[in-house]
Amino acid sequence: MLSIWLVLVSCIDFVLYSSAEEGLVFPSFDGRDRVLNVNERNYKKALKKYDMMCLLYHEPLPSDKELQQQFHMREMVLEQFRMNKNRHIEESIYVFKDERVIEFDGELSADTLVEFLLDLLEDPVELISNPMEQRAFERMDEDIRLIGYFKGEDSEHYKAFQLTAEKFQPYVKFFATFDKGVAKQLTLKMNEIDFYEPFMDEPVTIPGKPNTEEEIVDFVNQHRRPTLRKLRAEDMFETWEDDMDGIHIVAFAEEEDPDGYEFLEILKEVARDNTKNPDLSIVWIDPDEFPLLTTYWEKTFKVDLFRPQIGVVNVTDADSVWLNMPNDEALPSAEELEDWIEDVLSGKVNTEDDDDDDDDDDDDEDFDDDSSDEDHYGSDDDD
Amino acid sequence: MLSIWLVLVSCIDFVLYSSAEEGLVFPSFDGRDRVLNVNERNYKKALKKYDMMCLLYHEPLPSDKELQQQFHMREMVLEQFRMNKNRHIEESIYVFKDERVIEFDGELSADTLVEFLLDLLEDPVELISNPMEQRAFERMDEDIRLIGYFKGEDSEHYKAFQLTAEKFQPYVKFFATFDKGVAKQLTLKMNEIDFYEPFMDEPVTIPGKPNTEEEIVDFVNQHRRPTLRKLRAEDMFETWEDDMDGIHIVAFAEEEDPDGYEFLEILKEVARDNTKNPDLSIVWIDPDEFPLLTTYWEKTFKVDLFRPQIGVVNVTDADSVWLNMPNDEALPSAEELEDWIEDVLSGKVNTEDDDDDDDDDDDDEDFDDDSSDEDHYGSDDDD
Repeated sequence: MLSIWLVLVSCIDFVLYSSAEEGLVFPSFDGRDRVLNVNERNYKKALKKYDMMCLLYHEPLPSDKELQQQFHMREMVLEQFRMNKNRHIEESIYVFKDERVIEFDGELSADTLVEFLLDLLEDPVELISNPMEQRAFERMDEDIRLIGYFKGEDSEHYKAFQLTAEKFQPYVKFFATFDKGVAKQLTLKMNEIDFYEPFMDEPVTIPGKPNTEEEIVDFVNQHRRPTLRKLRAEDMFETWEDDMDGIHIVAFAEEEDPDGYEFLEILKEVARDNTKNPDLSIVWIDPDEFPLLTTYWEKTFKVDLFRPQIGVVNVTDADSVWLNMPNDEALPSAEELEDWIEDVLSGKVNTEDDDDDDDDDDDDEDFDDDSSDEDHYGSDDDD
Repeated sequence: MLSIWLVLVSCIDFVLYSSAEEGLVFPSFDGRDRVLNVNERNYKKALKKYDMMCLLYHEPLPSDKELQQQFHMREMVLEQFRMNKNRHIEESIYVFKDERVIEFDGELSADTLVEFLLDLLEDPVELISNPMEQRAFERMDEDIRLIGYFKGEDSEHYKAFQLTAEKFQPYVKFFATFDKGVAKQLTLKMNEIDFYEPFMDEPVTIPGKPNTEEEIVDFVNQHRRPTLRKLRAEDMFETWEDDMDGIHIVAFAEEEDPDGYEFLEILKEVARDNTKNPDLSIVWIDPDEFPLLTTYWEKTFKVDLFRPQIGVVNVTDADSVWLNMPNDEALPSAEELEDWIEDVLSGKVNTEDDDDDDDDDDDDEDFDDDSSDEDHYGSDDDD
């Protein structure tokens, strides 16, 4: 199985920059090979040599000429930090940092991977020491966050918290405060840790303070799947694979668009009302953040992503049904949305019924991938 | 001069997707050539054929073998929507839409270019019709925004507003409302248009309502350079080229980081206090949004971008001086920041003094005033 390992070593530190326009120069390939070929004989040495190492694990090189060319292409692209991962070839990227091995399961673009690596270099726990920083903390409602109040850097409970933070970095954000005033504002007692689910106003306190590392890890693992979660480039595949019995409830909404924002507020209200329901986890996708997938989603799901949408997607065949929202002025109320979600969870609305009936807006004819003449944006009703 | 035109036609619509994991499949190259070679004979036909066309204009192919290989590489990458622009080879990307030619002067990555193209397909004017949408509008404080109150879709003044919006799309955002309640909240009278500078609380009303297209265009052009502007991938090179007598005041701050957020709030306060000063335009860069440039900036400017920074950068040689902030707990107050900015604008703090002296705290040498082209300000806009 294991045959070739490509290692992108300390990749953040190794680039040569072209120098025509000063101050804003993207790295470009200088011809020097910095991707090491790692095999069973030399991998230990490589692990020792570098503080942080990023590794692409892939299948043996194919003999077929076309595939070989494809591989060669990918290697060139990797050299430029422009990586392309073909999901149906089994490949993985691992980062080795200290004693930890972290799998990268996000979008394989240079931006996302480098951001991921930079995030791993940050302090695992951020300190909140004044009201302004507290406001910054409160604004980050898209992330799973923990915040603890400790005596100071030397506190053993703070140290346990720090060790836990390293385990979840960079996916779950850890904060701490040593400041009495901040703690009071957040209603935190000494050595108490609060867990904030994304988009919820109120946190949950981890019981049994002071907490051991194991207790915190267990609590995070148990509460890790939120009622409403935003799809993020850095762990999009992991999120997608974490489906609910083969389906996802997916909501598309552009936060920067007035309709999208309005729809999202309704969605958050529904999530807050239903946060106790373990069967509910809605994936919110902001199409603005995935421009390369937008057209693919529109074709696959047969929806117009210039407006908000919510639907059920079967993850094995990408079959889907979508809530009928005739126009921008007819967004559902929180109650209507809740009724629809109930119908989804009870199975009344599902992706299979749709197959033998076409009373919704979409036409069910097969989409011809080659029809390139009239692009379907032209026929949009929005213009 | 003109020799080869590469055209990426209707590129959004042309991709074939691999299909192993349903619901989340990035486009991958299928081997079919969709980049057309356009020359003097066929460009008219191409322009007629497509609603929107994206064009890469480049120099004749170099004879030198290495450069040729580089070009070949770029073409392959272009095929994958993974584009790499080498800024010191003169190349440009233009989008042809209706009667308009829009130069793309942003980061040449697939994500950014496709997002730019998708933005161009949106309605040029967004309607704000209820309090929730108004809140969405108010949250977009990073962008230059205009909002007008009109009788309805058929109003001739609204039509003039729409035509203007098309001219500035997607860089300047245009909104309108036909709703009396929203207009009242925004203190807009009938046919009145307000201009919002980024990060300012109060808008400026365009004088002389109702306004003609020409009046709105002139007003936007005159007010287009804000006191504080965020560097955006979609027009980063344009922004960088719009320097103030050869320098930029650059602030690095991660909005998602507590210290970065705090620093940014101080910066906004300074910008609000100084919005009437035509000599001041600060470029705010969030390093999180430019992971591929972070290491380059750290090396070039010799600063630690894991913390907030503010400095003066000479755009011709990337020489720079940075405000001394010993640690995270010692962010400057708004007053201290204002004093430092005053020193920059008066020339007391400048990038040249730093050269003959390693101690970068303020020294009092005279500013070497070799460039005093005063009328640079506000003159070099628009096509």
